[in-house]
Amino acid sequence: MSYELWYWSDIPGRGEFVRLALEAANIPYRDCAREPQVGSQGLIEDMLRTRQHPPFAPPYLVAEGMTLGQTANILYFLGERHGLAPADLPGRLWVNQLQLTIADIVAEAHDVHHPIAASLYYEDQQTEALRRAAYFRKERMPKYLAYFERALSGGGGWLAGGERWSYVDLSLYHVIFGLLYAFPHRMAMIARDYPQVMALHDRVANLPELQAYLTSPRRLAMGADLFRHYVELDDKPTQQT
Amino acid sequence: MSYELWYWSDIPGRGEFVRLALEAANIPYRDCAREPQVGSQGLIEDMLRTRQHPPFAPPYLVAEGMTLGQTANILYFLGERHGLAPADLPGRLWVNQLQLTIADIVAEAHDVHHPIAASLYYEDQQTEALRRAAYFRKERMPKYLAYFERALSGGGGWLAGGERWSYVDLSLYHVIFGLLYAFPHRMAMIARDYPQVMALHDRVANLPELQAYLTSPRRLAMGADLFRHYVELDDKPTQQT
Repeated sequence: MSYELWYWSDIPGRGEFVRLALEAANIPYRDCAREPQVGSQGLIEDMLRTRQHPPFAPPYLVAEGMTLGQTANILYFLGERHGLAPADLPGRLWVNQLQLTIADIVAEAHDVHHPIAASLYYEDQQTEALRRAAYFRKERMPKYLAYFERALSGGGGWLAGGERWSYVDLSLYHVIFGLLYAFPHRMAMIARDYPQVMALHDRVANLPELQAYLTSPRRLAMGADLFRHYVELDDKPTQQT
Repeated sequence: MSYELWYWSDIPGRGEFVRLALEAANIPYRDCAREPQVGSQGLIEDMLRTRQHPPFAPPYLVAEGMTLGQTANILYFLGERHGLAPADLPGRLWVNQLQLTIADIVAEAHDVHHPIAASLYYEDQQTEALRRAAYFRKERMPKYLAYFERALSGGGGWLAGGERWSYVDLSLYHVIFGLLYAFPHRMAMIARDYPQVMALHDRVANLPELQAYLTSPRRLAMGADLFRHYVELDDKPTQQT
Protein backbone atom coordinates (compact mmCIF):
# COMPACT_ATOMS: atom_id res chain seq x y z
CA MET A 1 0.00 0.00 0.00
CA SER A 2 1.40 3.35 -0.97
CA TYR A 3 1.92 6.15 1.52
CA GLU A 4 -0.64 8.88 1.97
CA LEU A 5 0.71 12.41 2.23
CA TRP A 6 -1.63 15.04 3.63
CA TYR A 7 -0.86 18.70 3.06
CA TRP A 8 -2.65 21.83 1.86
CA SER A 9 -3.48 21.47 -1.78
CA ASP A 10 -2.45 24.89 -3.07
CA ILE A 11 1.04 25.65 -1.73
CA PRO A 12 4.38 23.79 -1.61
CA GLY A 13 4.74 24.70 2.09
CA ARG A 14 6.28 22.20 4.46
CA GLY A 15 4.77 19.43 2.38
CA GLU A 16 7.40 20.12 -0.26
CA PHE A 17 10.21 18.79 1.93
CA VAL A 18 8.39 15.47 2.13
CA ARG A 19 7.45 15.45 -1.55
CA LEU A 20 11.04 15.99 -2.62
CA ALA A 21 12.17 12.95 -0.63
CA LEU A 22 9.33 10.77 -1.90
CA GLU A 23 9.88 11.85 -5.48
CA ALA A 24 13.67 11.61 -5.52
CA ALA A 25 13.51 8.12 -4.02
CA ASN A 26 10.71 7.09 -6.37
CA ILE A 27 8.47 6.05 -3.46
CA PRO A 28 4.80 5.68 -4.45
CA TYR A 29 2.45 8.06 -2.59
CA ARG A 30 -0.92 9.71 -2.82
CA ASP A 31 -0.99 13.47 -2.36
CA CYS A 32 -4.43 13.17 -0.79
CA ALA A 33 -5.63 16.75 -0.46
CA ARG A 34 -4.78 17.39 -4.11
CA GLU A 35 -7.25 14.77 -5.26
CA PRO A 36 -10.23 16.73 -6.63
CA GLN A 37 -12.86 15.16 -4.40
CA VAL A 38 -10.79 15.82 -1.25
CA GLY A 39 -9.20 19.26 -1.22
CA SER A 40 -8.38 21.38 1.80
CA GLN A 41 -11.79 20.74 3.32
CA GLY A 42 -11.15 17.02 3.18
CA LEU A 43 -7.78 17.60 4.82
CA ILE A 44 -9.38 19.51 7.68
CA GLU A 45 -11.90 16.71 8.18
CA ASP A 46 -9.20 14.07 8.09
CA MET A 47 -7.14 15.94 10.70
CA LEU A 48 -10.08 15.81 13.12
CA ARG A 49 -10.51 12.05 12.82
CA THR A 50 -9.91 10.09 15.98
CA ARG A 51 -6.43 8.63 15.89
CA GLN A 52 -4.10 7.18 18.45
CA HIS A 53 -1.41 9.66 17.37
CA PRO A 54 -3.06 12.79 15.99
CA PRO A 55 -1.04 15.37 14.05
CA PHE A 56 -0.85 18.98 15.22
CA ALA A 57 -0.79 20.35 11.68
CA PRO A 58 -0.03 19.25 8.12
CA PRO A 59 2.06 17.76 6.68
CA TYR A 60 1.46 14.29 7.95
CA LEU A 61 2.12 10.94 6.37
CA VAL A 62 0.02 7.82 6.79
CA ALA A 63 2.44 4.92 6.49
CA GLU A 64 2.37 1.33 7.70
CA GLY A 65 -0.66 2.06 9.88
CA MET A 66 1.06 5.02 11.54
CA THR A 67 0.13 8.68 11.23
CA LEU A 68 3.38 10.64 11.35
CA GLY A 69 3.35 14.38 11.92
CA GLN A 70 6.10 17.02 11.92
CA THR A 71 8.16 17.37 8.76
CA ALA A 72 11.49 16.37 10.30
CA ASN A 73 9.88 13.34 11.93
CA ILE A 74 8.36 12.18 8.63
CA LEU A 75 11.72 12.57 6.95
CA TYR A 76 13.48 10.72 9.75
CA PHE A 77 11.15 7.79 9.12
CA LEU A 78 11.64 7.92 5.36
CA GLY A 79 15.39 8.18 5.81
CA GLU A 80 15.54 5.12 7.99
CA ARG A 81 13.07 3.01 6.01
CA HIS A 82 14.28 3.85 2.52
CA GLY A 83 17.98 4.49 3.04
CA LEU A 84 17.73 8.24 2.45
CA ALA A 85 20.13 8.99 5.31
CA PRO A 86 23.17 7.25 6.79
CA ALA A 87 22.35 4.07 8.68
CA ASP A 88 24.91 4.63 11.44
CA LEU A 89 23.95 6.51 14.60
CA PRO A 90 26.23 9.56 14.17
CA GLY A 91 25.14 9.98 10.57
CA ARG A 92 21.42 9.74 11.13
CA LEU A 93 21.53 12.08 14.13
CA TRP A 94 23.60 14.58 12.14
CA VAL A 95 21.08 14.58 9.31
CA ASN A 96 18.25 14.96 11.82
CA GLN A 97 20.09 17.84 13.51
CA LEU A 98 20.52 19.64 10.19
CA GLN A 99 16.88 19.03 9.29
CA LEU A 100 15.81 20.64 12.57
CA THR A 101 17.99 23.64 11.78
CA ILE A 102 16.20 23.85 8.44
CA ALA A 103 12.89 23.77 10.32
CA ASP A 104 14.15 26.77 12.29
CA ILE A 105 15.05 28.90 9.29
CA VAL A 106 11.78 27.95 7.59
CA ALA A 107 9.78 29.13 10.61
CA GLU A 108 11.78 32.36 10.72
CA ALA A 109 11.33 32.95 6.99
CA HIS A 110 7.57 32.58 7.46
CA ASP A 111 7.51 34.96 10.39
CA VAL A 112 9.25 37.63 8.31
CA HIS A 113 5.91 38.23 6.58
CA HIS A 114 3.82 37.15 9.56
CA PRO A 115 5.60 38.58 12.63
CA ILE A 116 2.42 39.14 14.66
CA ALA A 117 0.03 36.28 13.89
CA ALA A 118 -0.41 33.57 11.27
CA SER A 119 -4.14 34.32 11.39
CA LEU A 120 -3.75 37.89 10.14
CA TYR A 121 -3.20 38.96 6.57
CA TYR A 122 0.24 40.19 5.64
CA GLU A 123 -1.23 43.60 4.92
CA ASP A 124 -2.38 43.84 8.52
CA GLN A 125 1.14 43.28 9.88
CA GLN A 126 3.18 44.89 7.14
CA THR A 127 4.72 47.58 9.34
CA GLU A 128 6.10 44.95 11.68
CA ALA A 129 7.12 42.77 8.74
CA LEU A 130 9.24 45.54 7.26
CA ARG A 131 11.12 45.81 10.51
CA ARG A 132 11.56 42.08 11.02
CA ALA A 133 12.65 41.55 7.41
CA ALA A 134 15.59 43.92 7.80
CA TYR A 135 16.98 41.83 10.65
CA PHE A 136 16.27 38.57 8.87
CA ARG A 137 18.19 39.70 5.80
CA LYS A 138 21.07 41.24 7.72
CA GLU A 139 21.53 38.83 10.63
CA ARG A 140 19.66 35.58 10.18
CA MET A 141 20.22 34.74 6.52
CA PRO A 142 24.01 35.06 6.80
CA LYS A 143 24.05 33.13 10.07
CA TYR A 144 22.14 30.16 8.66
CA LEU A 145 23.91 30.21 5.30
CA ALA A 146 27.32 30.36 6.95
CA TYR A 147 26.36 27.41 9.12
CA PHE A 148 25.37 25.26 6.18
CA GLU A 149 28.52 26.33 4.34
CA ARG A 150 30.49 25.16 7.35
CA ALA A 151 28.53 21.90 7.42
CA LEU A 152 29.56 21.32 3.81
CA SER A 153 33.23 22.18 4.40
CA GLY A 154 34.25 18.53 4.61
CA GLY A 155 34.01 18.43 0.84
CA GLY A 156 32.23 15.86 -1.27
CA GLY A 157 29.26 18.11 -1.73
CA TRP A 158 26.64 16.31 0.37
CA LEU A 159 25.75 17.31 3.93
CA ALA A 160 26.02 13.80 5.34
CA GLY A 161 29.20 13.03 3.40
CA GLY A 162 29.18 9.94 1.25
CA GLU A 163 28.51 9.48 -2.44
CA ARG A 164 24.78 10.14 -2.52
CA TRP A 165 22.33 12.79 -1.34
CA SER A 166 20.40 12.34 1.89
CA TYR A 167 16.99 13.86 2.54
CA VAL A 168 18.46 16.95 4.17
CA ASP A 169 20.27 17.86 0.95
CA LEU A 170 16.89 17.98 -0.79
CA SER A 171 15.54 20.16 2.01
CA LEU A 172 18.46 22.58 1.89
CA TYR A 173 17.93 22.86 -1.86
CA HIS A 174 14.32 23.89 -1.26
CA VAL A 175 15.31 26.43 1.39
CA ILE A 176 17.76 28.06 -1.02
CA PHE A 177 15.14 27.90 -3.76
CA GLY A 178 12.76 29.66 -1.38
CA LEU A 179 15.28 32.32 -0.37
CA LEU A 180 16.11 33.02 -4.02
CA TYR A 181 12.40 33.39 -4.70
CA ALA A 182 11.60 35.57 -1.69
CA PHE A 183 14.77 37.64 -1.43
CA PRO A 184 16.29 37.74 -4.91
CA HIS A 185 18.21 40.98 -4.40
CA ARG A 186 19.55 39.96 -1.03
CA MET A 187 20.66 36.62 -2.38
CA ALA A 188 22.30 38.29 -5.38
CA MET A 189 24.43 40.23 -2.95
CA ILE A 190 25.47 37.45 -0.57
CA ALA A 191 25.27 34.15 -2.46
CA ARG A 192 28.93 34.36 -3.48
CA ASP A 193 29.88 34.03 0.19
CA TYR A 194 28.37 30.54 0.29
CA PRO A 195 29.75 28.71 -2.75
CA GLN A 196 29.23 25.19 -1.39
CA VAL A 197 25.65 25.89 -0.41
CA MET A 198 24.88 27.31 -3.84
CA ALA A 199 26.63 24.39 -5.52
CA LEU A 200 24.48 21.99 -3.51
CA HIS A 201 21.38 23.86 -4.65
CA ASP A 202 22.44 23.43 -8.28
CA ARG A 203 23.43 19.80 -7.79
CA VAL A 204 20.03 18.87 -6.37
CA ALA A 205 18.21 20.88 -9.04
CA ASN A 206 19.99 18.74 -11.62
CA LEU A 207 19.57 15.33 -10.01
CA PRO A 208 18.35 12.96 -12.72
CA GLU A 209 15.91 11.36 -10.25
CA LEU A 210 14.20 14.71 -9.64
CA GLN A 211 13.79 15.94 -13.23
CA ALA A 212 10.44 14.29 -13.87
CA TYR A 213 9.00 15.81 -10.70
CA LEU A 214 10.47 19.27 -11.09
CA THR A 215 8.91 19.66 -14.52
CA SER A 216 5.59 18.02 -13.66
CA PRO A 217 2.31 19.60 -12.52
CA ARG A 218 2.81 17.77 -9.22
CA ARG A 219 5.23 20.51 -8.30
CA LEU A 220 3.28 23.50 -7.08
CA ALA A 221 4.28 27.08 -7.76
CA MET A 222 5.47 29.32 -4.95
CA GLY A 223 2.86 31.81 -3.78
CA ALA A 224 1.12 32.65 -0.52
CA ASP A 225 3.42 30.27 1.24
CA LEU A 226 6.28 30.01 3.72
CA PHE A 227 8.63 31.85 1.37
CA ARG A 228 6.92 34.90 -0.10
CA HIS A 229 8.18 37.51 -2.45
CA TYR A 230 7.21 41.01 -1.40
CA VAL A 231 9.45 43.60 -3.04
CA GLU A 232 9.37 45.77 0.07
CA LEU A 233 10.75 42.96 2.27
CA ASP A 234 13.80 42.38 0.09
CA ASP A 235 16.85 44.61 -0.33
CA LYS A 236 16.70 47.18 -3.05
CA PRO A 237 18.56 46.25 -6.24
CA THR A 238 21.20 48.94 -5.85
CA GLN A 239 21.61 48.73 -2.09
CA GLN A 240 25.08 48.02 -0.75
CA THR A 241 25.48 45.89 2.38
CA MET B 1 33.03 9.06 30.46
CA SER B 2 30.10 11.24 31.40
CA TYR B 3 28.26 13.38 28.88
CA GLU B 4 29.11 17.03 28.41
CA LEU B 5 26.17 19.39 28.14
CA TRP B 6 26.85 22.83 26.71
CA TYR B 7 24.35 25.60 27.26
CA TRP B 8 24.32 29.23 28.41
CA SER B 9 25.21 29.35 32.07
CA ASP B 10 22.60 31.79 33.34
CA ILE B 11 19.20 30.69 31.99
CA PRO B 12 17.26 27.41 31.89
CA GLY B 13 16.49 27.97 28.21
CA ARG B 14 16.42 25.03 25.86
CA GLY B 15 19.12 23.40 27.95
CA GLU B 16 16.49 22.70 30.58
CA PHE B 17 14.74 20.12 28.41
CA VAL B 18 17.99 18.16 28.23
CA ARG B 19 18.81 18.65 31.91
CA LEU B 20 15.42 17.32 32.97
CA ALA B 21 15.99 14.10 31.01
CA LEU B 22 19.54 13.66 32.29
CA GLU B 23 18.51 14.34 35.88
CA ALA B 24 15.35 12.23 35.91
CA ALA B 25 17.25 9.29 34.43
CA ASN B 26 20.20 9.83 36.77
CA ILE B 27 22.66 10.03 33.87
CA PRO B 28 26.03 11.56 34.87
CA TYR B 29 26.85 14.79 32.99
CA ARG B 30 28.92 17.91 33.20
CA ASP B 31 27.09 21.20 32.72
CA CYS B 32 30.20 22.65 31.14
CA ALA B 33 29.46 26.34 30.78
CA ARG B 34 28.38 26.51 34.42
CA GLU B 35 31.83 25.50 35.59
CA PRO B 36 33.42 28.71 36.92
CA GLN B 37 36.48 28.64 34.70
CA VAL B 38 34.38 28.15 31.56
CA GLY B 39 31.26 30.33 31.51
CA SER B 40 29.49 31.73 28.48
CA GLN B 41 32.75 32.88 26.96
CA GLY B 42 34.07 29.33 27.12
CA LEU B 43 30.89 28.13 25.48
CA ILE B 44 31.30 30.56 22.61
CA GLU B 45 34.89 29.41 22.13
CA ASP B 46 33.89 25.76 22.25
CA MET B 47 31.19 26.33 19.63
CA LEU B 48 33.78 27.67 17.20
CA ARG B 49 36.06 24.64 17.52
CA THR B 50 36.52 22.62 14.38
CA ARG B 51 34.25 19.61 14.48
CA GLN B 52 32.98 17.16 11.94
CA HIS B 53 29.41 17.96 13.01
CA PRO B 54 29.25 21.51 14.36
CA PRO B 55 26.20 22.72 16.29
CA PHE B 56 24.24 25.75 15.09
CA ALA B 57 23.48 26.93 18.62
CA PRO B 58 23.37 25.62 22.19
CA PRO B 59 22.32 23.31 23.66
CA TYR B 60 24.59 20.59 22.40
CA LEU B 61 25.69 17.37 24.01
CA VAL B 62 29.07 15.73 23.60
CA ALA B 63 28.45 12.01 23.93
CA GLU B 64 30.32 8.94 22.74
CA GLY B 65 32.56 11.07 20.56
CA MET B 66 29.60 12.76 18.87
CA THR B 67 28.56 16.39 19.16
CA LEU B 68 24.77 16.45 19.04
CA GLY B 69 22.90 19.70 18.45
CA GLN B 70 19.20 20.60 18.41
CA THR B 71 17.24 19.88 21.59
CA ALA B 72 14.87 17.32 20.07
CA ASN B 73 17.79 15.51 18.45
CA ILE B 74 19.68 15.30 21.74
CA LEU B 75 16.57 13.95 23.44
CA TYR B 76 15.99 11.45 20.66
CA PHE B 77 19.49 10.09 21.29
CA LEU B 78 18.99 9.98 25.07
CA GLY B 79 15.62 8.32 24.62
CA GLU B 80 17.03 5.59 22.45
CA ARG B 81 20.22 5.03 24.43
CA HIS B 82 18.73 5.17 27.92
CA GLY B 83 15.22 3.85 27.40
CA LEU B 84 13.56 7.22 27.97
CA ALA B 85 11.12 6.63 25.12
CA PRO B 86 9.37 3.59 23.65
CA ALA B 87 11.68 1.25 21.77
CA ASP B 88 9.18 0.41 19.02
CA LEU B 89 9.07 2.50 15.85
CA PRO B 90 5.56 4.00 16.26
CA GLY B 91 6.30 4.93 19.86
CA ARG B 92 9.64 6.58 19.30
CA LEU B 93 8.37 8.52 16.27
CA TRP B 94 5.32 9.66 18.25
CA VAL B 95 7.49 10.95 21.09
CA ASN B 96 9.75 12.70 18.57
CA GLN B 97 6.71 14.24 16.86
CA LEU B 98 5.43 15.60 20.16
CA GLN B 99 8.89 16.92 21.07
CA LEU B 100 9.00 18.82 17.77
CA THR B 101 5.61 20.32 18.54
CA ILE B 102 7.04 21.43 21.87
CA ALA B 103 9.94 23.01 19.99
CA ASP B 104 7.35 24.95 17.99
CA ILE B 105 5.49 26.37 20.98
CA VAL B 106 8.79 27.22 22.69
CA ALA B 107 9.93 29.20 19.65
CA GLU B 108 6.58 31.00 19.53
CA ALA B 109 6.66 31.76 23.26
CA HIS B 110 10.08 33.32 22.77
CA ASP B 111 8.95 35.39 19.83
CA VAL B 112 6.11 36.83 21.91
CA HIS B 113 8.66 39.05 23.63
CA HIS B 114 11.04 39.16 20.64
CA PRO B 115 8.79 39.47 17.56
CA ILE B 116 11.26 41.53 15.52
CA ALA B 117 14.76 40.28 16.32
CA ALA B 118 16.50 38.18 18.95
CA SER B 119 19.36 40.68 18.82
CA LEU B 120 17.21 43.59 20.04
CA TYR B 121 16.19 44.27 23.62
CA TYR B 122 12.60 43.60 24.54
CA GLU B 123 12.13 47.28 25.22
CA ASP B 124 13.01 48.05 21.62
CA GLN B 125 10.26 45.79 20.26
CA GLN B 126 7.68 46.18 23.01
CA THR B 127 5.01 47.71 20.79
CA GLU B 128 5.13 44.72 18.46
CA ALA B 129 5.35 42.34 21.43
CA LEU B 130 2.12 43.68 22.90
CA ARG B 131 0.37 42.95 19.65
CA ARG B 132 1.88 39.49 19.16
CA ALA B 133 1.18 38.52 22.78
CA ALA B 134 -2.55 39.09 22.38
CA TYR B 135 -2.70 36.55 19.53
CA PHE B 136 -0.44 34.11 21.34
CA ARG B 137 -2.68 34.14 24.41
CA LYS B 138 -5.94 34.01 22.49
CA GLU B 139 -5.11 31.68 19.59
CA ARG B 140 -1.87 29.82 20.06
CA MET B 141 -1.93 28.84 23.73
CA PRO B 142 -5.39 27.20 23.45
CA LYS B 143 -4.43 25.50 20.20
CA TYR B 144 -1.29 23.90 21.63
CA LEU B 145 -2.84 23.06 24.99
CA ALA B 146 -5.88 21.47 23.33
CA TYR B 147 -3.56 19.39 21.19
CA PHE B 148 -1.61 18.04 24.14
CA GLU B 149 -4.87 17.41 25.98
CA ARG B 150 -5.99 15.39 22.98
CA ALA B 151 -2.64 13.55 22.92
CA LEU B 152 -3.26 12.56 26.54
CA SER B 153 -6.84 11.45 25.95
CA GLY B 154 -5.91 7.79 25.76
CA GLY B 155 -5.66 7.84 29.52
CA GLY B 156 -2.82 6.53 31.64
CA GLY B 157 -1.37 9.96 32.11
CA TRP B 158 1.80 9.73 30.00
CA LEU B 159 2.07 11.00 26.45
CA ALA B 160 3.60 7.82 25.06
CA GLY B 161 1.24 5.57 27.02
CA GLY B 162 2.81 2.95 29.18
CA GLU B 163 3.60 2.91 32.86
CA ARG B 164 6.49 5.35 32.94
CA TRP B 165 7.29 8.85 31.75
CA SER B 166 9.19 9.43 28.52
CA TYR B 167 11.39 12.44 27.85
CA VAL B 168 8.55 14.36 26.19
CA ASP B 169 6.52 14.27 29.42
CA LEU B 170 9.37 16.08 31.15
CA SER B 171 9.45 18.62 28.33
CA LEU B 172 5.71 19.25 28.43
CA TYR B 173 6.01 19.78 32.17
CA HIS B 174 8.61 22.48 31.57
CA VAL B 175 6.48 24.15 28.90
CA ILE B 176 3.54 24.35 31.31
CA PHE B 177 5.88 25.56 34.04
CA GLY B 178 7.04 28.26 31.65
CA LEU B 179 3.54 29.28 30.62
CA LEU B 180 2.45 29.49 34.27
CA TYR B 181 5.47 31.68 34.94
CA ALA B 182 5.09 33.95 31.92
CA PHE B 183 1.29 34.14 31.65
CA PRO B 184 -0.08 33.48 35.13
CA HIS B 185 -3.36 35.30 34.59
CA ARG B 186 -4.01 33.74 31.23
CA MET B 187 -3.28 30.29 32.62
CA ALA B 188 -5.54 30.93 35.62
CA MET B 189 -8.37 31.53 33.15
CA ILE B 190 -7.84 28.59 30.80
CA ALA B 191 -6.02 25.84 32.72
CA ARG B 192 -9.32 24.19 33.73
CA ASP B 193 -9.94 23.40 30.07
CA TYR B 194 -6.87 21.15 30.00
CA PRO B 195 -7.14 18.90 33.04
CA GLN B 196 -4.94 16.10 31.73
CA VAL B 197 -2.19 18.50 30.73
CA MET B 198 -2.25 20.15 34.14
CA ALA B 199 -2.29 16.75 35.85
CA LEU B 200 0.77 15.75 33.85
CA HIS B 201 2.52 18.92 34.98
CA ASP B 202 1.80 18.05 38.61
CA ARG B 203 2.78 14.41 38.13
CA VAL B 204 6.20 15.30 36.73
CA ALA B 205 6.75 17.98 39.38
CA ASN B 206 6.27 15.25 41.98
CA LEU B 207 8.37 12.51 40.39
CA PRO B 208 10.62 11.08 43.10
CA GLU B 209 13.53 10.91 40.66
CA LEU B 210 13.33 14.68 40.02
CA GLN B 211 13.05 15.97 43.58
CA ALA B 212 16.78 16.23 44.25
CA TYR B 213 17.27 18.24 41.07
CA LEU B 214 14.25 20.50 41.42
CA THR B 215 15.40 21.65 44.86
CA SER B 216 19.09 21.90 43.99
CA PRO B 217 21.12 24.90 42.85
CA ARG B 218 21.64 23.05 39.57
CA ARG B 219 18.16 24.18 38.62
CA LEU B 220 18.34 27.74 37.37
CA ALA B 221 15.67 30.35 38.03
CA MET B 222 13.52 31.66 35.20
CA GLY B 223 14.51 35.12 34.03
CA ALA B 224 15.61 36.70 30.75
CA ASP B 225 14.83 33.47 29.02
CA LEU B 226 12.48 31.79 26.54
CA PHE B 227 9.54 32.21 28.88
CA ARG B 228 9.47 35.71 30.32
CA HIS B 229 7.05 37.35 32.65
CA TYR B 230 6.13 40.84 31.58
CA VAL B 231 2.88 41.99 33.20
CA GLU B 232 1.86 43.86 30.08
CA LEU B 233 2.11 40.73 27.90
CA ASP B 234 -0.25 38.70 30.09
CA ASP B 235 -3.99 39.09 30.49
CA LYS B 236 -5.18 41.42 33.21
CA PRO B 237 -6.30 39.68 36.39
CA THR B 238 -9.96 40.68 36.01
CA GLN B 239 -10.21 40.28 32.26
CA GLN B 240 -12.83 37.92 30.93
CA THR B 241 -12.12 35.85 27.82
